Amino acid sequence: MSAAQGFEFTLLHTDAHSAARRGRIQTAHGTIETPVFMPVGTQGTVKSLSPDELRDTGSQIILGNTYHLYLRPGTALLQQAGGLHRFANWPGPILTDSGGYQVFSLSGLRKIHEDGVRFQSHIDGSYHDFTPENVMDMQRLIGADIIMAFDECPPHTATEPYVARSNEITRKWAHRCREAWLAKEPAYGYGQALFGIVQGGVFPHLRRESAHQLIELDLPGYAIGGLSVGEPAPVMYEMTGVVTGILPADKPRYLMGVGKPENMVEAVALGVDMFDCVIPTRNGRRGQAFTWQGTINLRNARFRDDFSPIDADCPCYACANFSRAYIRHLLQAGELFALRLVSLHNIAFFHQLMQAMREAIEQDRFAQWKRDFYAGLEQK
Amino acid sequence: MSAAQGFEFTLLHTDAHSAARRGRIQTAHGTIETPVFMPVGTQGTVKSLSPDELRDTGSQIILGNTYHLYLRPGTALLQQAGGLHRFANWPGPILTDSGGYQVFSLSGLRKIHEDGVRFQSHIDGSYHDFTPENVMDMQRLIGADIIMAFDECPPHTATEPYVARSNEITRKWAHRCREAWLAKEPAYGYGQALFGIVQGGVFPHLRRESAHQLIELDLPGYAIGGLSVGEPAPVMYEMTGVVTGILPADKPRYLMGVGKPENMVEAVALGVDMFDCVIPTRNGRRGQAFTWQGTINLRNARFRDDFSPIDADCPCYACANFSRAYIRHLLQAGELFALRLVSLHNIAFFHQLMQAMREAIEQDRFAQWKRDFYAGLEQK
Repeated sequence: MSAAQGFEFTLLHTDAHSAARRGRIQTAHGTIETPVFMPVGTQGTVKSLSPDELRDTGSQIILGNTYHLYLRPGTALLQQAGGLHRFANWPGPILTDSGGYQVFSLSGLRKIHEDGVRFQSHIDGSYHDFTPENVMDMQRLIGADIIMAFDECPPHTATEPYVARSNEITRKWAHRCREAWLAKEPAYGYGQALFGIVQGGVFPHLRRESAHQLIELDLPGYAIGGLSVGEPAPVMYEMTGVVTGILPADKPRYLMGVGKPENMVEAVALGVDMFDCVIPTRNGRRGQAFTWQGTINLRNARFRDDFSPIDADCPCYACANFSRAYIRHLLQAGELFALRLVSLHNIAFFHQLMQAMREAIEQDRFAQWKRDFYAGLEQK
Repeated sequence: MSAAQGFEFTLLHTDAHSAARRGRIQTAHGTIETPVFMPVGTQGTVKSLSPDELRDTGSQIILGNTYHLYLRPGTALLQQAGGLHRFANWPGPILTDSGGYQVFSLSGLRKIHEDGVRFQSHIDGSYHDFTPENVMDMQRLIGADIIMAFDECPPHTATEPYVARSNEITRKWAHRCREAWLAKEPAYGYGQALFGIVQGGVFPHLRRESAHQLIELDLPGYAIGGLSVGEPAPVMYEMTGVVTGILPADKPRYLMGVGKPENMVEAVALGVDMFDCVIPTRNGRRGQAFTWQGTINLRNARFRDDFSPIDADCPCYACANFSRAYIRHLLQAGELFALRLVSLHNIAFFHQLMQAMREAIEQDRFAQWKRDFYAGLEQK
């Protein structure tokens, strides 16, 4: 069996007036229409939502975080369970990140060494080593359909010399990830597609260098990492455009950790196919709801007696059944059901946004759609 | 329209070998088969669960707490919403308590005065007065199908003279509640059935006195209050039996705030028809799951690699889809979805327990069923 057996990307159409792409990814666990938003299930659950609700809101693929799943419940247990799909009862495609971002942002003291990185768990302070090889093995046992190369993710404030050295680490690790990925049979009888992660900080020539280095590996897909980590949005778009301008057209492109609706719209225009972000669930739990007119915070007193749904045109369970006034009451009262309703709506909205973009691209009217999208936001 | 229009209790059958009763309550929002367990939705939501999930687990009627709903979101808002059924999107029957228990257990400084009780909100310390009249009006605006008389709920440590005086207050207030209930048309076009609450502490003669006083009012139903508040279980059963021995057979009997499965089984044997308790949801959020073999705590390390469901015979969504190992992982990781799964299972279990008792009573085999139930618990 080839390492990525069952994985296939088809570029269906490119918008006539932009770089926006309409594609389709085939995986062993189902088909993904792109551009796609992927809800984040860090610890084997998209916070507060059931697999059925994820399906009903239009989720095609969810994420898991290798760093978290490795620490808890551990990959040995996931292997016993028959992989994350079965453990979490999510029958659709799963993507796992490599833990690179978490090791560099979340864990305690960390030190890059010859083999990889030593770090302290954010849970109990225990020491662990991540190497390209063991991270590949973790993702093999988690059983995701798409797995990510282990990379160094420098902070957005990193200097040019630092990022240049970091690129070299990411390049070497990507090679080692590829070797490790090819060396072992997948754990559960289906292929797993390895994506490389382009780094390079906020420096266009280092982004280009990193992209060229990874393209050489001829991987099934490519991600753009190290963005949406604090840099201004124009810089994010510039770096994204630099990289999408280089990446091969016949491979999917994934902008990691992005983002807000506007960020995704801009990135789709630049030729990005895949996104993930905790915003819809994290902000949802704080009462922030996304709509075509922008965001609203349902804790706001003005919703106290607003008996309309979050979004009158949204078909999601929250909007079909509950008013802003009721959800505001639940938020004020600290009720768990509120967190779920707003998270559910936000995920549904993100998928509707993607669906709208997919249709606009298919019909070569993405540029006009984008203008209409921004005009809608301003009506708020 | 009569004050309780649409409400009717039918005693279908009494067990041949015990006082256990099989009944049916008709309300404007649907039928309730008794004995029944009523999940508690204190603030207009049964914690963590959706109305659909409540239906799917077999919930026939849910509770709301007048004290909480009065303080937040307030009865004026509920009136604007068209009542709690519409606000919370629960189309089935609702019962509201009178706030008596909360005023005496939850609020700050409280003082019984001529008209009722002055107390401080547990939310912001503000002062409020509850009187029989305004509590009836609150419940009218909440719109519950079954409403409760405002009572004084003495602590289980109260002395006999205290409880004797308290009985007199509860008696007077019940009269005033009845007058207020009859004086106004229901707010939403359907009747609301007023239940009286028998008090009397742990003193059989005071329980009898209270029961006789309330029976005189010829109310649509009767509750037994002031139990399950810290007294030993045998005392709870003794007091329950004293009261059910007096209450009219053609009216439903509701044992408030009870309880654990064993408590409910014993009380059904004594002729109780209705129960409510926060145990399935509160304990569920702590990881405690109820089964026919007793309770288990899913946080326990022994469930780490237990890939069986909470209860192999339970048809609930949690048991049909997720393992103990997965739920334990979610609990360990502090994930919201766990709270929902265990709460959902527990509510489903409580309803299954009631269903089993209803069938046993219908077939005059309740005594044998009860022995089997206890034998099952001991197999743990």
